Amino acid sequence: MNLDFSKFDGLLPAVVQDATSGRVLMVGFMNDEAWRKTRETGFVTFYSRSRNKLWMKGESSGHRLVVKEIFTDCDVDTLVIKVDALGPGVCHEGYESCFFRKLEGNDWVVTDKQMYDPNAVYGGKQ
Amino acid sequence: MNLDFSKFDGLLPAVVQDATSGRVLMVGFMNDEAWRKTRETGFVTFYSRSRNKLWMKGESSGHRLVVKEIFTDCDVDTLVIKVDALGPGVCHEGYESCFFRKLEGNDWVVTDKQMYDPNAVYGGKQ
Repeated sequence: MNLDFSKFDGLLPAVVQDATSGRVLMVGFMNDEAWRKTRETGFVTFYSRSRNKLWMKGESSGHRLVVKEIFTDCDVDTLVIKVDALGPGVCHEGYESCFFRKLEGNDWVVTDKQMYDPNAVYGGKQ
Repeated sequence: MNLDFSKFDGLLPAVVQDATSGRVLMVGFMNDEAWRKTRETGFVTFYSRSRNKLWMKGESSGHRLVVKEIFTDCDVDTLVIKVDALGPGVCHEGYESCFFRKLEGNDWVVTDKQMYDPNAVYGGKQ
């Protein structure tokens, strides 16, 4: 049973979930090569649409995502990857999770606290 | 702060997570209209790419998804929606979650048990 990369021009969404807390940390996209690299290395690797290249999460920051378990859905076109996150957070804005904004009424409100200084880690890069 | 629907021709991914257990139940896509309908009704509504129309999850089966909390990410182009699921499962194949297959070695193995008979609920329809 092979993954179906056909739905979005060779990409499929991968939901990254903390293996311990169950929190959704981020959602990225993988092409076939990113998928193979994720399996070969044991570190979550995406395809960056903005940079048009493979992107091992945490390659520059050290905040890599160690693959613990991988699930796929009934259509075999989406992944859920449970990880141990190395480092205090996955978000380049300094938060544990990229999903740090919650809808309250009509407003998106930041409901998390920053876990680290993104400028110190990324120096302006992601 | 408005959601960014531009990345996939007017669609963005929405991760549906059980509000109690934290399990990822399914991932669907929303266009602007599906997003508005989700907020107006309080039930998760997707845009079905295969059927080219709005799709309130559970409209035919009764297994609707009651919105409890909504989060967006740093790029404002992805949603995490925490829900109370009405009914025993969200997957049209009869499982609690669409992510019922786990990678073991090189094989996708069904690691869940069916929660209901999908033919009885859907009668061949989703």
